[in-house]
Amino acid sequence: MLATVIHGERDVRLEEVPDPVLSTGGDAIVRVVAACVCGSDLWPYRGVTPTKEPHRIGHEFVGIVEATGSDVSTVKVGDFVIAPFYDCDGTCVNCRNGVSTSCLNGGWWGAEDQLGGFADGAQGERVRVPHADGTLVATPSVPSDELVPSLLTLADVMGTGHHAAVSAGVEPGSTVVVVGDGAVGLCAILASKRLGASRIVAMSRHADRQAVAREFGATDIIEARGDEGVAAVKALFDGVGADYVLECVGTQESMDQAIRSARPGGMVGYVGVPNGGAELPIRTLFGTNVGVNGGVASVRSYVEELLPEVLSRQINPGRVFDLQLPLAEVAEAYAAMDERRAIKVLLRP
Amino acid sequence: MLATVIHGERDVRLEEVPDPVLSTGGDAIVRVVAACVCGSDLWPYRGVTPTKEPHRIGHEFVGIVEATGSDVSTVKVGDFVIAPFYDCDGTCVNCRNGVSTSCLNGGWWGAEDQLGGFADGAQGERVRVPHADGTLVATPSVPSDELVPSLLTLADVMGTGHHAAVSAGVEPGSTVVVVGDGAVGLCAILASKRLGASRIVAMSRHADRQAVAREFGATDIIEARGDEGVAAVKALFDGVGADYVLECVGTQESMDQAIRSARPGGMVGYVGVPNGGAELPIRTLFGTNVGVNGGVASVRSYVEELLPEVLSRQINPGRVFDLQLPLAEVAEAYAAMDERRAIKVLLRP
Repeated sequence: MLATVIHGERDVRLEEVPDPVLSTGGDAIVRVVAACVCGSDLWPYRGVTPTKEPHRIGHEFVGIVEATGSDVSTVKVGDFVIAPFYDCDGTCVNCRNGVSTSCLNGGWWGAEDQLGGFADGAQGERVRVPHADGTLVATPSVPSDELVPSLLTLADVMGTGHHAAVSAGVEPGSTVVVVGDGAVGLCAILASKRLGASRIVAMSRHADRQAVAREFGATDIIEARGDEGVAAVKALFDGVGADYVLECVGTQESMDQAIRSARPGGMVGYVGVPNGGAELPIRTLFGTNVGVNGGVASVRSYVEELLPEVLSRQINPGRVFDLQLPLAEVAEAYAAMDERRAIKVLLRP
Repeated sequence: MLATVIHGERDVRLEEVPDPVLSTGGDAIVRVVAACVCGSDLWPYRGVTPTKEPHRIGHEFVGIVEATGSDVSTVKVGDFVIAPFYDCDGTCVNCRNGVSTSCLNGGWWGAEDQLGGFADGAQGERVRVPHADGTLVATPSVPSDELVPSLLTLADVMGTGHHAAVSAGVEPGSTVVVVGDGAVGLCAILASKRLGASRIVAMSRHADRQAVAREFGATDIIEARGDEGVAAVKALFDGVGADYVLECVGTQESMDQAIRSARPGGMVGYVGVPNGGAELPIRTLFGTNVGVNGGVASVRSYVEELLPEVLSRQINPGRVFDLQLPLAEVAEAYAAMDERRAIKVLLRP
């Protein structure tokens, strides 16, 4: 089959790779209907994290089950399924605690699983899914094609934006600032709106992203950054800052912006993968009682909550995809995101 | 009047100082019935934070109102009052948000207030209280003497232990580890018990403190620290750690212990004043979804909740005082705490 392999900086190629095969009783083979490129895929693409040897890439996909191991009971051949950006058994103590990204038996796409099998990267034609029962969620029926983009966001960005909001504790009537206007930041706006925030500020300098932010529920847009951005936030909120700030970038600059935008006693929910040496200024946090909560989003744990609203069209997070390309053009998909010509690119094998 | 002045390392003296005088309409003069020495007073006492010039010290007291400014309406001459370890107006946006330690008009004992008056240190005979209405809480009647120690803990340590538990989110049925067996740590155990924790681990190596910990609700004691301590905690909780960990020390070592003792998705509530360069390991926090929340405890905001249980003897946080001395022996009070001969010392002018 064909799958994407990253070879180094700005070098991703669609290549012939071995077809996946079932190897444990609990696995499944899924034919990919749609995959996409993640902001975090850009770190190796840009060479920020070096690629030591070529490897499969991509961790977001939806598809149709083609085969299942003999122990699989929750999905069957022909089901349309959503996969989170990791695999998990759904039964260990961490999964039961809702932190399925810390599954004791789980793993990541494009890597060997803990039983020695291989979990394919998502930017390909097929994926072998370890722990199919714990990992995959089947929709009640095969959805219409126009729902695919929104369903695909449940694999990562919508669940991750939701995790930022939930980790911060966004509640009805609260005020929220979202730092980061990528797909995750935009989804964090949508998540905050769903959770009842009364005022949502998008920190964004890009007209196209501001438009989506408004559609998703942003009530205010702030283009300024740094001291000026913090001052603009405080001016909106009694001079002290917002109740909750959602950090969806992962740089030192964005984390500082987030912490300084929270009011005393506020909370930063963060989901930006800490890139480089992002540090938390503990004395500032202590003095202002600003908390920091978040991490690798346990998106699998959120699918049941978010899926009905996608299926009923109450929310349309798929709006973050502003470019669709055939899988054959995966290199162009990366380039478009790298050059900010697209917010997020959907790929169809 | 007499009040305590710190001159430098291991040099605290009771000295004659000017009597406090009312200087704004909103202030009050309180005759101190009981004060005490705080773990944080030991930082300057030990020279860890240098004393550049002699200054008043002490920030925990209860007493009787002797005089009030013309604008004061919530307390009157003769009232027995509890003062938090800071003054606050009770009306600014941060006070309304429950974060009275960030009061826009507040200040600290032993320092000038924002209107240019002086707020005396608590380890003395009398204290001028700026913002008497926002700061002081009167008990319904003058309490019996044996209640004084527990009432005094509402000025700091009980409220601070409660803040650790509330910041972490301790809830009925949850599991808690408390790092630190000083007065605040012990009160954090009591607070967790009140909030319904089903299992509470005290990290303690001192038999006297272990005994109080048990009285306050600890179900388990762990003496080990570092890797061994973390392993012992994990062994108690499904191999993954506790739901909530309360950090009540403020060193890098104690914060590391706390973070590593929390299960994935858990929360560290911290109230130990960060001493030196305590850092938060953001990549570990991100990977495990362990959050960190807390800071300078807004104890004034908790008095109304905790006071009835003290008055009805449901809780007896005053148990942390294992030595009472006359104010004249303040130097011995510091020495006893410094040398760990006492958990916490109560002073009576």
